[in-house]
Amino acid sequence: MGVLVFILALIPLTGGQDLYIMKAESPGPNVGKLVPKVKKTASYLYIIYFILTALEILCLWIVKMPLFDAVCTSFTTTSTGGFGVRADSITSYSPAIQYVISVFLFFSGINYNFFFFVAIRRFKEALSMEEIRGYFTLFWISTAIITLNILGKCHNVEEAFRYAFFQVGSIMTTAGFSSTDFDLWPSFSKSILILLMLVGGCAGSTCGGIKVSRIIIYLKTIKKELAQLCHPRNVKIIQIDDKPLGHNILRSANIFFIVYIMLFGLSTLIISIDNLDLETNFTAVASALGNIGPGLSLVGPTKNFDLYSNFSKFVLMFDMLAGRLELFPLLVLLSPATWRKK
Amino acid sequence: MGVLVFILALIPLTGGQDLYIMKAESPGPNVGKLVPKVKKTASYLYIIYFILTALEILCLWIVKMPLFDAVCTSFTTTSTGGFGVRADSITSYSPAIQYVISVFLFFSGINYNFFFFVAIRRFKEALSMEEIRGYFTLFWISTAIITLNILGKCHNVEEAFRYAFFQVGSIMTTAGFSSTDFDLWPSFSKSILILLMLVGGCAGSTCGGIKVSRIIIYLKTIKKELAQLCHPRNVKIIQIDDKPLGHNILRSANIFFIVYIMLFGLSTLIISIDNLDLETNFTAVASALGNIGPGLSLVGPTKNFDLYSNFSKFVLMFDMLAGRLELFPLLVLLSPATWRKK
Repeated sequence: MGVLVFILALIPLTGGQDLYIMKAESPGPNVGKLVPKVKKTASYLYIIYFILTALEILCLWIVKMPLFDAVCTSFTTTSTGGFGVRADSITSYSPAIQYVISVFLFFSGINYNFFFFVAIRRFKEALSMEEIRGYFTLFWISTAIITLNILGKCHNVEEAFRYAFFQVGSIMTTAGFSSTDFDLWPSFSKSILILLMLVGGCAGSTCGGIKVSRIIIYLKTIKKELAQLCHPRNVKIIQIDDKPLGHNILRSANIFFIVYIMLFGLSTLIISIDNLDLETNFTAVASALGNIGPGLSLVGPTKNFDLYSNFSKFVLMFDMLAGRLELFPLLVLLSPATWRKK
Repeated sequence: MGVLVFILALIPLTGGQDLYIMKAESPGPNVGKLVPKVKKTASYLYIIYFILTALEILCLWIVKMPLFDAVCTSFTTTSTGGFGVRADSITSYSPAIQYVISVFLFFSGINYNFFFFVAIRRFKEALSMEEIRGYFTLFWISTAIITLNILGKCHNVEEAFRYAFFQVGSIMTTAGFSSTDFDLWPSFSKSILILLMLVGGCAGSTCGGIKVSRIIIYLKTIKKELAQLCHPRNVKIIQIDDKPLGHNILRSANIFFIVYIMLFGLSTLIISIDNLDLETNFTAVASALGNIGPGLSLVGPTKNFDLYSNFSKFVLMFDMLAGRLELFPLLVLLSPATWRKK
C-alpha cells in the first residue's frame, strides 16, 4: 500500500500538498480522491485493505488451511506479493483453498475505488468504471481461453478451470503464486500469461505492470488517431468514465509505455550476456518489471533465478524497483542532469 | 522505392498536392524535400537508387560474382529485399563478395538525404544529420560487440568481423540475407539482432522497422520528460537537426510505437496457437513486421515459415503489409469507423 499513504492516514498535513504525495506513490496514471479530504481517502484505502486481508484469513480458515499459513498467505495475497509458505507455493493445498486464494487474487487486482463505491452502495457507478470493466473482461476471457487450451493436459474441466483461474489471477495481479507448473502449458496459454504479465492489474490496486487503465488509454488513443486519419478536421477528446483526459496525462502515459518497453528490451539484452535462452531472459525481465516472481522456461514457477550471474541479478533488481516505482523515479536518479551542479 | 514516388518523378502534377503523396509513401516520421520541387526530389531519389544499384553490380562483377547473380543480388540489396539467388542465401559466396554486399547493405540503410548532401558536396551537413550519426553508431557498435561475442565460434577475427558486419547489415537494413547460421550464435548476439530487427534502418531509406529517427525522437522525449520532472517549469522543445519537432510529429511517433508493440504482442499471441516455441513466434513476428525474412529458432536463417498453419501465415502476411505501409493504412482498413455509412 505504500509507506507514504500510511503516514498520510495517520499524520495531519497542512498546505494542500498531501494529494501530490498520494499521486507520487499510487500506481497508475490517474489518481482520484474518493472523498474531499486526502487524509480520509488514505484511511478508507487502508480500511479496504484490512477488510480484504481479514476476510481472506477467515475464508481460508473455514476451508481448513492451517491458521499460520492462512495469515501469511492472506498478507501476501492482498499485497499481491505472492510469497508462498510452502516450497511448491500453492500447489499442494486443497482445491477449496486454491479457489479461495483465486477469488481474493481477483479482488486484489481491482481498483480500490470500486470497493469504496460498493461500500457506499453506489453499485451502478462501481460497475460502470471503464477500468473495472476492462479488468473483468480481460480476466475472464483469459481464464476461459486458457481453460479450453489446457483441457487436454488436465483430468477434467473443473481442474482446468481451477488452474486457469488461479494462474490468471496470480499473474495478472502480479502476485506470482503458482498452483501448477504453467511452464508445461501449450504456447498459446503461455503467451497469454506473458501478455498479462505486461498488462498487470488495475491502477489504484497493489499490482505492478503497465496497468489496465493505461491500456485503455492507449486503445482510445489509437482509435482517435485512426478516426482522425479518415476525418482530419474531427476534434475528439479522449475520455475515461466520461471525464476528459488532459494532454499531460496522455503524454505521460505514452512516454510510460515507451520507457517500459525500452527498459524491457535493454534489460533483456544485458542479461542475455549469461547466455540463457531468449524465453528465459524475456520472461525474467517481464517478471521483474511487473514484480511478479516466476517467469517461464529456466525461471519457471518450479525454478528460480539462481542461474543468473550477480551482474544480471543487479539488472533485474533495478527492474523490480523501477517497475514498482512506475519507472521515472529510478530513471531520474540515473539521469546525468539530476547530478549536474547548477 | 514506391510506385507513387516513381509516378511523381515522371508525371507532372499541379495543385501542390504532390508532397502529400510523397509523405504518404515514404517511410519515417519526417519527410523533407531535398529541393523545392517535389518532382525533382523524386527524380533525385531515383538517381541515387540507380547509382547504388549500378555501383554494386560493378563491384560484385569485379570480385568475380557471376553476372546474373550480381544483377539479382544488387537489385535486392538496394531495395533491402534480401532475396538470395542461391538456396543458402550468401553463405557459399567468397569473402570478397560478402564484404561488397555488406558495404552496400550498410549504404542501403542510410537516409537518402545523406547521399544527396554528399552529391552536392555539403559533407559537413551530411555527417551532422542526427539520424545518420545514430545509424552509424548503432551499426558499428553492434558489429563490434557481435564480433567479440562470436569470436569463440569462428576461426579468426577476420571471419568473426565478416559475419558480424554482414549479419548486422542484413538485419538492421531489414534485407534478410544471411552469410552464416546466426541462430547458432550466443544469446547476447541474438538479442542484439532481435533489437536491430525492431529498430530497422533510417527513415527515408528502403528499410522497414521502427526507424532510427523515431528511436532518436523517443530518447529525446524521455530525456525531456526526466528533465521536466526535476524542473517542472522548464520549457524545452524537442529538436532534430536543430529544427523543432511539432506536436503532431511527436504524437504520431509515440502512437506509432504503441501500435507497433501492441500489434507485435497480438500477432505473437495469435500465431502461438500453432504451439511453436516463444522464440520462434516472437522472431517470426519481428521479422514479418520489419520485412526482414529470417527469424530465429524454427524460423532461423536456414529454415522457413513452412511450419506455420495457413491461418498464422495470413496473420504474418498482414504484419508484413502493415510494417511496410507504416501500420496505419492497414489499421484504417480494419477499423469499423471506416466502413460505417454516414
